[in-house]
Amino acid sequence: MRVFITGIDGYLGWALAQYMTAQGHEVAGADLMLRREWVEEVKSTSAIPVYSREERIEAFEKEFNKSIDFRVGDLCDYDFVTGFFDEFKPEAIVHLGQMPSAPYSMIDQKHSVWTQINNITSNMNLLWAMHDVVPDAHLVKLGTMGEYGQPNIDIPEGFFEVEFRGRKDVLPFPRQAGSWYHQSKVHDSNNTHFACKIWGLRATDIMQGVVFGTQFPGLGDDPRLRTRLDFDQCFGTAINRFCVQAVVGHPLTLYGAGTMRRGFLPLRDAMRCLTLAVQNPAEKGEYRVFNQFAEAYSIADLAYMTQEVGASLGLNVDIKHYDNPRGEREDHYYNPDRNNLLKIGYEPSQDVRSEMHLMIEDLLQHKDRLMEYKDILVPDIRWDGTRRRSDEIKQEKPVN
Amino acid sequence: MRVFITGIDGYLGWALAQYMTAQGHEVAGADLMLRREWVEEVKSTSAIPVYSREERIEAFEKEFNKSIDFRVGDLCDYDFVTGFFDEFKPEAIVHLGQMPSAPYSMIDQKHSVWTQINNITSNMNLLWAMHDVVPDAHLVKLGTMGEYGQPNIDIPEGFFEVEFRGRKDVLPFPRQAGSWYHQSKVHDSNNTHFACKIWGLRATDIMQGVVFGTQFPGLGDDPRLRTRLDFDQCFGTAINRFCVQAVVGHPLTLYGAGTMRRGFLPLRDAMRCLTLAVQNPAEKGEYRVFNQFAEAYSIADLAYMTQEVGASLGLNVDIKHYDNPRGEREDHYYNPDRNNLLKIGYEPSQDVRSEMHLMIEDLLQHKDRLMEYKDILVPDIRWDGTRRRSDEIKQEKPVN
Repeated sequence: MRVFITGIDGYLGWALAQYMTAQGHEVAGADLMLRREWVEEVKSTSAIPVYSREERIEAFEKEFNKSIDFRVGDLCDYDFVTGFFDEFKPEAIVHLGQMPSAPYSMIDQKHSVWTQINNITSNMNLLWAMHDVVPDAHLVKLGTMGEYGQPNIDIPEGFFEVEFRGRKDVLPFPRQAGSWYHQSKVHDSNNTHFACKIWGLRATDIMQGVVFGTQFPGLGDDPRLRTRLDFDQCFGTAINRFCVQAVVGHPLTLYGAGTMRRGFLPLRDAMRCLTLAVQNPAEKGEYRVFNQFAEAYSIADLAYMTQEVGASLGLNVDIKHYDNPRGEREDHYYNPDRNNLLKIGYEPSQDVRSEMHLMIEDLLQHKDRLMEYKDILVPDIRWDGTRRRSDEIKQEKPVN
Repeated sequence: MRVFITGIDGYLGWALAQYMTAQGHEVAGADLMLRREWVEEVKSTSAIPVYSREERIEAFEKEFNKSIDFRVGDLCDYDFVTGFFDEFKPEAIVHLGQMPSAPYSMIDQKHSVWTQINNITSNMNLLWAMHDVVPDAHLVKLGTMGEYGQPNIDIPEGFFEVEFRGRKDVLPFPRQAGSWYHQSKVHDSNNTHFACKIWGLRATDIMQGVVFGTQFPGLGDDPRLRTRLDFDQCFGTAINRFCVQAVVGHPLTLYGAGTMRRGFLPLRDAMRCLTLAVQNPAEKGEYRVFNQFAEAYSIADLAYMTQEVGASLGLNVDIKHYDNPRGEREDHYYNPDRNNLLKIGYEPSQDVRSEMHLMIEDLLQHKDRLMEYKDILVPDIRWDGTRRRSDEIKQEKPVN
């Protein structure tokens, strides 16, 4: 199948290009290479070294013995998108090309507005370009479990049947996203749903959990094929950040009590799920939602697991609590569904520890370089619109 | 109270500036004057002649014997917004400054993206400027009843209690907006709700029905004080468009069967409701939703009323059905709540006919000029992204 990947230079995008090529698909993609700039802006770097686009393409073509059309371009430029679609004629579009960080979007007015405008414009351009150029293609759009927020009821996959004052309807499940970034994804979901309804497009909207890990099937030996791994307060998500902290000997930074629960999945599961979605397309006019995660954990659970795995590798890992810079409830009900992907063949990984083990081994090779980033590991971007480094707080060992 | 009106040059904005000044409030406002350009772009004009900003200000100052700070400026320019807030220090902000047309947003990629980016950026800028400059001010933001779409259950005011799999929660009522414009308003509502939650801002989100009419209390005799009235396919909403069609002798353009139901309210009620919201502000951190309309009618009901009122004024009014350019259900359940405004003193007007009568009398004075616009009265902007003039269709007299 011809698969177009937006954000092909990113953590998921560069891995997916290889994973899907190894599965026999023809892959092309676009990236504006901004992720590299954002991470520099927050004074960090990828823990796994990343190579230039040219070096990546060269290594890819050597590994798979086929060419890849990987262009630098802006999805907010409509002519760029339609021009590329016209040439490549994608059958599936996996949309990963967005600004994906909650804290980055919370920095100030400029960052929040830019995040929403960039994400919404690029997503609308993809919808219009499908309408204008490839109306039968299937959009696999990356959303996030964070779109749902923290409702006090089970979280279904996108829609639920409601009875209200004696009448029934099946309605979109209400979204209560917790950052300007997460809100931008809600807007994208609403726009995508609407485009399917009026134009008969087909879309799968992936409400993805937090991805972690460095390894995936299809990854070759050439270091230029490795995908990035972030660990800063903006782009470093929980497990990845914890593993880097374990490696450099910095206390794991638990926000507040750390009792907040989230869905998580290893990078290899993300690859598998996105590929399953592509291989099992939605119907014409169908907008369907997949909740994509392997298991739900509290952040504290994961910190203790990191500590345990670190110990098995000879690392002495400390855990500290910091005042929570995010406006979120720490104690909350969390029971999301995860059935749609199981139906098409997803078998969730359940061994977080072995994935952590692989990741820490990978990271230990870069320890010296990572030691230089020890002072950016405590967050200072706050949800109230100010900027102040979180203080260490006393906290009883949280109930897991 | 110091009231800042965005979109002060518009249909509601220019009327509200006068209405609230007559009630003793101090009013300032901003407008980029784009509405005048958009209406020209769709080859139409305001049925009631509108004067330049300078002439409007002059007439206003003469009528009310006080000055008004009415600036030309772009709400997407953050420095413009904060600079104005810094000087005026608004206690309430009535946000009417948006691109408000569903069909205009459906024209093509450019118009749809521009609509969302303009509306979202300006609304986010207002939220940030409140956060940065006037955190205690009260935002009265204009949304639309169209945000809810056509659910098969009652429509509460913004939130509802849900029982799902044996657990309960109070959740935002799901939105299913039916145009790129309406989607932009949903995104604004979500962003506004979020800002109240994280920053403790106070906001009233008005889900307004379709406004009609030319008259409101406080309007002086000077023709320069009159507010605009649109009748084209983009900016002319149902009753206003019908009354102009009645005056020029064009058949009333009913889309499809005309059985779609909407909430409506006369301009005078819109003024009263917005003022009640301003005078009864939300609490710190509160995001509340008012459904703002007087009564719900089918579009066909209103066409027959227009015909009847036209006849009483000696006009021979024909009604024709045209194939519906919008992707909407024509037969649907529609039962929205409307309690929050009643609680703070709103008494809905129920006499649509007398308002139509006043409007047609006003419009008859401009008949000669309006006759020149007879050929723009049939819609050609279609929800499928194409452009084709609607055909007249045969339709049995619809069930009211």
